[in-house]
Amino acid sequence: MGKFQDRYEEYRQFFEAALKKFCTELDFRPNVLTESMRYSLLSGGKRVRPVLFFASLELFGADFRRETVLPIALECIHTYSLIHDDLPAMDNDDFRRGNPSNHKVFGEANAILAGDALLSEAAVLLLREAGKDEKHRRAALWLMEAAGAGGMVAGQSADLLYMGKTATEEELDFIYAHKTGKLIAAPVVMAAILAGGDEKNAERFGMELGRLFQFTDDLLDVKGDSALMGKTLGKDAEEDKATCVKVYGLERCELLADRCAAKCLDLLDQFQGDKEFLRGIVDLVRSRDN
Amino acid sequence: MGKFQDRYEEYRQFFEAALKKFCTELDFRPNVLTESMRYSLLSGGKRVRPVLFFASLELFGADFRRETVLPIALECIHTYSLIHDDLPAMDNDDFRRGNPSNHKVFGEANAILAGDALLSEAAVLLLREAGKDEKHRRAALWLMEAAGAGGMVAGQSADLLYMGKTATEEELDFIYAHKTGKLIAAPVVMAAILAGGDEKNAERFGMELGRLFQFTDDLLDVKGDSALMGKTLGKDAEEDKATCVKVYGLERCELLADRCAAKCLDLLDQFQGDKEFLRGIVDLVRSRDN
Repeated sequence: MGKFQDRYEEYRQFFEAALKKFCTELDFRPNVLTESMRYSLLSGGKRVRPVLFFASLELFGADFRRETVLPIALECIHTYSLIHDDLPAMDNDDFRRGNPSNHKVFGEANAILAGDALLSEAAVLLLREAGKDEKHRRAALWLMEAAGAGGMVAGQSADLLYMGKTATEEELDFIYAHKTGKLIAAPVVMAAILAGGDEKNAERFGMELGRLFQFTDDLLDVKGDSALMGKTLGKDAEEDKATCVKVYGLERCELLADRCAAKCLDLLDQFQGDKEFLRGIVDLVRSRDN
Repeated sequence: MGKFQDRYEEYRQFFEAALKKFCTELDFRPNVLTESMRYSLLSGGKRVRPVLFFASLELFGADFRRETVLPIALECIHTYSLIHDDLPAMDNDDFRRGNPSNHKVFGEANAILAGDALLSEAAVLLLREAGKDEKHRRAALWLMEAAGAGGMVAGQSADLLYMGKTATEEELDFIYAHKTGKLIAAPVVMAAILAGGDEKNAERFGMELGRLFQFTDDLLDVKGDSALMGKTLGKDAEEDKATCVKVYGLERCELLADRCAAKCLDLLDQFQGDKEFLRGIVDLVRSRDN
């Protein structure tokens, strides 16, 4: 585990440095706009998506240190989605990663704009990146499609729709695939596009890992420790959301999460190259306590 | 005026047909997501920005019928900005173009997502367009920068910031340039990039026209007819917003708007080609009653 931890930290710190540089160079006017963007971008988080991107680049034989723009755009998109998701009209969460959510610090109007700004600046980064070559443009496009109305936003919309209703297994799958799957798959697929990996299998593996991620997220909302999670728990049941626990029951959920993790490992095995670190990611996501 | 009107209608109807086709082909799941996007995209509006784009293409000697993707992306961005701007936490407007605003029909959470979806899908369109050639990528990038934290979002943020405060003339200029100017300049600049027009003068003219547009918008909020405008008026004063009327007083405002229109015409004169229609646009924006 020490070796896995070290490599995770290497990727994470490399990303953190690049993101900090990006944030330092932001200087939009008015100041509150820049500050509200920085606040959420730099509020910690495990940086799972950038780590997945770097690890996948290495799996496919590329030098991970050459590609910082795409993971920064991805993290901007992920961060905007959290800011909007936390709004009173959406999930109404006062805390995120142990800190007051964006709208608790800057007010609702500024939080809406901080999210809009992060999504727009991600698109700006992607359009610049698209000028490098066709591979970068394709990777950027995959990310934006994964974030949009055929991806993450669709998942958020479905999540709202099934509040207080009973979702079928197929409907839950749709929510998982879109709310979480697409943006977990994005870094793996982008790496495959850039480094010539198997794009189809990258997507399958990424989507399955996203599914696992949402399984454990739902499970943690029931059995987790809110101090470790840095947010209020038990909210899914309170809001009667469509979760795996509601659809399958707690016990069957744990079983399905194990199966999902096993499928991730199977899909990983189909890649050439050193899969040790990504196996560790699967284990981490299955057994995480935050 | 008949000839001007006819040409405006030709551009507008050409755009309306392309947009309708785009909307028909949207079929995101859940249905409410697609419906909420369509509702605001197809709620009328004068389509000033697309008309400006087509007219500028013709001014610079290009065939306007070949470029529908960029103006659709622009209108998606403009529409998202209106949906978010109408939200209770922002301007809290119940009506837009004579119809209930998006959040009055679909609820706040869905309206936030409809805006996010429109911005994302605009970015998707732009990243596809960027694959055509370098000119299209540059035009797409200009648009996204104009929409983002260095553009329209900055204007929205500054607009909030100066509510209830006294803005200087320089601060009002900043708000005008960003809230309105950038997305009015975008179609003119994009056309110049694509058709080899004078980009610098296109930007100067577009920014000045945007300034005029916001001048008359502020004036109409004081002296307009809410039935013609299709929205509640007198809101700027009620919310004590930074407007030209507040900064300069009504009378001086009319004078400055006239000067602004004259400057637009001067800048137009610096282009080669047939400027008749764009002169008509300047007159229309100066004398509009909605």
